[in-house]
Amino acid sequence: MKCVGYYDGQMGPLEDIRIPMNDRACYFGDGVYDATCTIHGIPMHFDDHINRIYRSAALIGIEIPMSKEEMKDVLMKLVNQADEDINMLYWQVTRGEGLRQHSFSGAQTKARVWAFVKPSTLRDPFAVYKCITVPDRRYYFCNIKTINLLPAVLASQQAEEAGCDEAIFHRGDRVTECAHSNVHIIRDGVFQTAPCDDLILPGITRAHILEICRRLGIPTLEKPFTLEEMMAADEIFFSSSSALTCRIGTIDGRSVGLRDEKTFGAIRDAYQADIRKESEKK
Amino acid sequence: MKCVGYYDGQMGPLEDIRIPMNDRACYFGDGVYDATCTIHGIPMHFDDHINRIYRSAALIGIEIPMSKEEMKDVLMKLVNQADEDINMLYWQVTRGEGLRQHSFSGAQTKARVWAFVKPSTLRDPFAVYKCITVPDRRYYFCNIKTINLLPAVLASQQAEEAGCDEAIFHRGDRVTECAHSNVHIIRDGVFQTAPCDDLILPGITRAHILEICRRLGIPTLEKPFTLEEMMAADEIFFSSSSALTCRIGTIDGRSVGLRDEKTFGAIRDAYQADIRKESEKK
Repeated sequence: MKCVGYYDGQMGPLEDIRIPMNDRACYFGDGVYDATCTIHGIPMHFDDHINRIYRSAALIGIEIPMSKEEMKDVLMKLVNQADEDINMLYWQVTRGEGLRQHSFSGAQTKARVWAFVKPSTLRDPFAVYKCITVPDRRYYFCNIKTINLLPAVLASQQAEEAGCDEAIFHRGDRVTECAHSNVHIIRDGVFQTAPCDDLILPGITRAHILEICRRLGIPTLEKPFTLEEMMAADEIFFSSSSALTCRIGTIDGRSVGLRDEKTFGAIRDAYQADIRKESEKK
Repeated sequence: MKCVGYYDGQMGPLEDIRIPMNDRACYFGDGVYDATCTIHGIPMHFDDHINRIYRSAALIGIEIPMSKEEMKDVLMKLVNQADEDINMLYWQVTRGEGLRQHSFSGAQTKARVWAFVKPSTLRDPFAVYKCITVPDRRYYFCNIKTINLLPAVLASQQAEEAGCDEAIFHRGDRVTECAHSNVHIIRDGVFQTAPCDDLILPGITRAHILEICRRLGIPTLEKPFTLEEMMAADEIFFSSSSALTCRIGTIDGRSVGLRDEKTFGAIRDAYQADIRKESEKK
């Protein structure tokens, strides 16, 4: 098992990488990130993730100091050093280094690229998962994948302490997303997920699931749903680039969903097949 | 001019301090901070700031690995190396080091103490300042001084680009606080400031101003005020440990306040006198 780290041109064992204290990540969380799993040395949906981090960076005014191809080259150097079959590839771009002050136009900040690869496992797509619900007290920048993640950290910890796998956020009655995934329901054969606004991350797995539904002829609805609608849905599942599709059977200790295996199974199997196909592309 | 940095026992020139990439500050902004100005080697309201960082840490479940006296000793070592009369003393505590994962009970995380001292200046207490208003899109943990500061970074940048000194946040019609200070109004001789809830930081200067008002017989009101009430107020000013009290004369390009010099001046002068007294305590 090997974790390889990278910071601004420097590469080595992750636990040995040191970064300047004055990187604005340290004082402000002033950066954006992305992550995906790699299978047989291939980062899944790589271009989608690369495009998303450029979009996230642009939304907070960070100029990434390399082209997309250069970024992919750096990341592939890390992936090629990993010695496991399945890894997590993580990378972030921070606004750069400077004496601490909030505004940044005065600072000579050159954005910094960070990355690491670490051994990982995929969640069992046939298991049934348990969740808790947590009031969504996050900011209104949830469409941007920034490293201001403290509310997600606290909710994940709460889920773990409750013996659960994920925390589902709700803003008032509206379900938004999870601490590190999107959440969806199936009702009367219709796949429903929240629309892309500033309350959710535009998940790449979410987008692929929508595409799969269209391909399979499963009707889709991009419309917010309430806690009550979720609890009464035929199926509930969360999705992310590392979790893929995870079927939920328990929320806040109550049995939920698991009543439309046909529709959920069709989505899960199509997604698994897509991932398998992509991981054999070499 | 000298900036001295500290990380987990290591001390030296700030620009040379390196920290482990796996410190949870880097991936999550998983930490809390505090800061104050030092005058003639004395950190202003030191105990208040020390108490606040312990309170912030406790609110997100971080156990600080040293006593308050030990923390003060470490910070004074930095202050004693500074070679200017007025400095900013900044310190933070992060949850510690570990392979990236949101929840933290599994990680062997020992919280880390960071600090730096850098030359600073105090704002001119007799100047008149310009502000902009910005919708408050922050999270609902504003009572905790965490390093998830991206919305404050973006608002500060916006203020700077508008040629202004500070950004005033409002949630809907309600004024909350500024990007790095609290904001107050004076109406008919009454000092009014927002109450301490999860939308504002319980500012130490704010608390001292309330105490000064009581001492001077100026009536106080801890009640939210609206944008409209602010724009029509006799005086508007922001306060923080580094800004002290800053009188506002322009908001969003409109002339505001500056109509009760007597009350504002009494608060400002009493606060300046308190600071002067404290800085001569040695």
